[in-house]
Amino acid sequence: MSDKVIVSTKTETGNFFEDFSLGQSLVHATPRTVTEGDVSLYTALYGARFVVNSSDDFASTLGLPGAPVDDLLAFHIVFGKTVADISLNAVANLGYAECRFLTRLYPGDTVSTTSEVIGLKENSNGKTGVVYVRSTGTNQIGEKVIEYVRWVMVRKRDESAPAPDASVPELATEVSPETLTVPEGLDFSDYDPVLGGSRYLWDDYEVGECIDHVDGMTVEESDHMTATRLYQNTAKVHFNQFTESKGRFGRRLMYGGHIISLARCLSFNGLSNAAFVAAINGGRHVAPTFAGDTVFAWSKILACAKIDGHDDVGALRVQTTAVKDQPCGEFPGKLEDGKYHDQVVLDLDYWVLMPRRAQ
Amino acid sequence: MSDKVIVSTKTETGNFFEDFSLGQSLVHATPRTVTEGDVSLYTALYGARFVVNSSDDFASTLGLPGAPVDDLLAFHIVFGKTVADISLNAVANLGYAECRFLTRLYPGDTVSTTSEVIGLKENSNGKTGVVYVRSTGTNQIGEKVIEYVRWVMVRKRDESAPAPDASVPELATEVSPETLTVPEGLDFSDYDPVLGGSRYLWDDYEVGECIDHVDGMTVEESDHMTATRLYQNTAKVHFNQFTESKGRFGRRLMYGGHIISLARCLSFNGLSNAAFVAAINGGRHVAPTFAGDTVFAWSKILACAKIDGHDDVGALRVQTTAVKDQPCGEFPGKLEDGKYHDQVVLDLDYWVLMPRRAQ
Amino acid sequence: MSDKVIVSTKTETGNFFEDFSLGQSLVHATPRTVTEGDVSLYTALYGARFVVNSSDDFASTLGLPGAPVDDLLAFHIVFGKTVADISLNAVANLGYAECRFLTRLYPGDTVSTTSEVIGLKENSNGKTGVVYVRSTGTNQIGEKVIEYVRWVMVRKRDESAPAPDASVPELATEVSPETLTVPEGLDFSDYDPVLGGSRYLWDDYEVGECIDHVDGMTVEESDHMTATRLYQNTAKVHFNQFTESKGRFGRRLMYGGHIISLARCLSFNGLSNAAFVAAINGGRHVAPTFAGDTVFAWSKILACAKIDGHDDVGALRVQTTAVKDQPCGEFPGKLEDGKYHDQVVLDLDYWVLMPRRAQ
Repeated sequence: MSDKVIVSTKTETGNFFEDFSLGQSLVHATPRTVTEGDVSLYTALYGARFVVNSSDDFASTLGLPGAPVDDLLAFHIVFGKTVADISLNAVANLGYAECRFLTRLYPGDTVSTTSEVIGLKENSNGKTGVVYVRSTGTNQIGEKVIEYVRWVMVRKRDESAPAPDASVPELATEVSPETLTVPEGLDFSDYDPVLGGSRYLWDDYEVGECIDHVDGMTVEESDHMTATRLYQNTAKVHFNQFTESKGRFGRRLMYGGHIISLARCLSFNGLSNAAFVAAINGGRHVAPTFAGDTVFAWSKILACAKIDGHDDVGALRVQTTAVKDQPCGEFPGKLEDGKYHDQVVLDLDYWVLMPRRAQ
Repeated sequence: MSDKVIVSTKTETGNFFEDFSLGQSLVHATPRTVTEGDVSLYTALYGARFVVNSSDDFASTLGLPGAPVDDLLAFHIVFGKTVADISLNAVANLGYAECRFLTRLYPGDTVSTTSEVIGLKENSNGKTGVVYVRSTGTNQIGEKVIEYVRWVMVRKRDESAPAPDASVPELATEVSPETLTVPEGLDFSDYDPVLGGSRYLWDDYEVGECIDHVDGMTVEESDHMTATRLYQNTAKVHFNQFTESKGRFGRRLMYGGHIISLARCLSFNGLSNAAFVAAINGGRHVAPTFAGDTVFAWSKILACAKIDGHDDVGALRVQTTAVKDQPCGEFPGKLEDGKYHDQVVLDLDYWVLMPRRAQ
Repeated sequence: MSDKVIVSTKTETGNFFEDFSLGQSLVHATPRTVTEGDVSLYTALYGARFVVNSSDDFASTLGLPGAPVDDLLAFHIVFGKTVADISLNAVANLGYAECRFLTRLYPGDTVSTTSEVIGLKENSNGKTGVVYVRSTGTNQIGEKVIEYVRWVMVRKRDESAPAPDASVPELATEVSPETLTVPEGLDFSDYDPVLGGSRYLWDDYEVGECIDHVDGMTVEESDHMTATRLYQNTAKVHFNQFTESKGRFGRRLMYGGHIISLARCLSFNGLSNAAFVAAINGGRHVAPTFAGDTVFAWSKILACAKIDGHDDVGALRVQTTAVKDQPCGEFPGKLEDGKYHDQVVLDLDYWVLMPRRAQ
């Protein structure tokens, strides 16, 4: 045993803005086998009730090999792996686009994530820049599970580092419904809406319909930290009260994805048969959330689309707004001046797949 | 994308008293595959130690195909499904009776629940009524898993709605021990009480014996909400601090079943070899419980019964009383005037199965 | 039903100092099948990211049958079983030694624990004594999983009970690296350090190197109680706020093993490829921890050892110090006078196995 002290440099500090280059590929650490244990925890964290994810037997009546893992659980796991490389030095998570759910995960599948840098733009203050990455989650046989773009504002390590040529990718404002992927083998012909929790199917929704999901869920520190650790997401602001107590908010910030999942699970009341998330067109964390907040949600149907070659499946484009400490009977959202109602925390625009009535 | 706003009517508001009719059948939503993940969470929520549920190997020495799911976990899942249809507008959960555990659940089994309305009686105030339902949990091959009666006081939507003919079912005050079901394949001949945690078997208990279970468990908000979400129980009062802060108690109410499971797990110390819950004769949530409460429990042996055709198995009728913020050395319970000691929160009367000594 | 009250004596009160005898064997209750559910909970409790435990596919590229259960999860489960017999009446958990991880657990394995009393020494005050036990966790086919010695100070029931002949075992201050066990089938030749989370392998570490693991994790009551219940550890001080509020600290004490796991998971940043814990040389809970504490950690490399017959595997002897509410950039630890820095809570000395570069 030695008394000498050598200060190690092996601790990872994450990438800073100048560490990224256009076209750069990143292989993220820690592939993860998803299990029934993760599914149970997801249920316990959000009270998820979408029947396709709840019952192997029900799922098998739809032609699936068993109950697939909730799409957003898959998303959070894929996303979690990117944090150490992409957003450890992020000032802000600015947006998502072009997120597509391509292959469903089942317990036992192993998922890993890679990213490509598709845009870089230094901010005029010279202290930060925006990094655009396309991240891809892949299963153990190489199938793409989820693909999405996000952009984050990242600190520079050294403000004197030269700015890269600005390159901002053109991103679709909507995932085109023609490109939505129906889960392999899915046949909704025998879907039982009673077991699904509602008699309303795709045919019953109309554009402009606004649904107050009514229920509210209060989040505890233990809840959001448990979720975020389950996703192996290591962003520091979620876990460390000692440091955060001296920070901007004085307390731990909740992982934005926790709110996405809460909002989706609250949306069950009114969208019970929205069995799958097929795409996320865009998402914005309008305001931070903290332990003690009670989250409510409401949704607006933005579009209804048929799916080519699938008479039994329809897609709904849904905008779900999550709001804290404010019931949603009056649909608090974006105001006329483009700002949001004070209590809004999330504005999420996505496609879901829902059974259609027999034609 | 459209700017028009159509207020949706698709949100479920649950059934009100006048929505129920005698003989009505309800098929509840969200069948659920129970997994090893649920079992781990149950252990983590209550510290359950009953060996039959803990070890596949131990269970297989008893002739079982593996460790069955804890009987009360099965109960909570079966129960959770009924909430959206039966008790979303309940004022009070009045009682349980005739609850029988008929087939054990194993990880991988899928359970679904149906209910039949077996009684209706409007209250004299014209604002509420009592609904009696017999609910049945069934596994994927159609075997009855659990059957029980509960009655709840439900609000009327419209006070002017006519009262139904009053019909109150006759309910047994006790599940007759002759009708208790021994798990299929169970053979306690090789039961090892050392591994079970106590040398005491069925033969060692006597009627009137009162057992102080000694230990106490403090419940956090995160704990009871996690449990209740795991059971997909959506009763609003458990989750929404924003609304409850304005309500009767000023805070979230704990799911009564959480206390039942806590009491059962505390009862391990003194009833370690009470391997199975075979029936619940009756149960009463005497007072509400809240986060921060420390739950203690004690039990009284009400009866000892042999099981016909099973020399290796005996039944004990147990009354377990859960008490908050009060140790149970003096057995606080029902007082002479029929009221309860101030700190009592649960009075549960049930049958357990325990190994007998070799004859 | 009877009105007579018979006060039961069946509640276990645990062993007191005079109940132990040298050479005594104890078979602990509640064998436990470890499942994927436990693994998910472990991830959710600590944010564990060691890749060998995270991915079945990754583990199988190393010649393993799948992802083994985290070594410390196995330790906590083995340890938990001993509490009811060894330390229910403990005043203090004094130390660990000679802890060896011999066979890895995989989901589906069942573990049980036995202990042998290897030392006894009454304290001069006549009120307490030190009990030394060697505990062994065994899997369902009789293979030793974990073996360790711990010693605890245990109360006497009756102060007038005669003192046993003092017998203090000689314990190794270090598990000799020659005796470390490499997991069966393990071949690190194809280990991918990128997926492991760091480019640093065994060859890159040097004796005296001190690593600040940087991150901090705040612990909630729900978190440490959930963990401790998962391990079926029933030590009263962790769970009962009613009683503890009147005790020495006024609040619930955290299970020391929770801090060990937190420290190990924080050590990922700097020791990402420390795939296995092979042995624990010694450990000391320097100060108690409570909910609300933020735990940081740093590690010092005490020794580097090759493993005979395994060119692909190296062992590092690591001293990890956990500290509360204090970042570790200045490596707070043992001071010159032999005392510890005020904020230190854990001093753990252990061996890890890490891949070596191709020779």
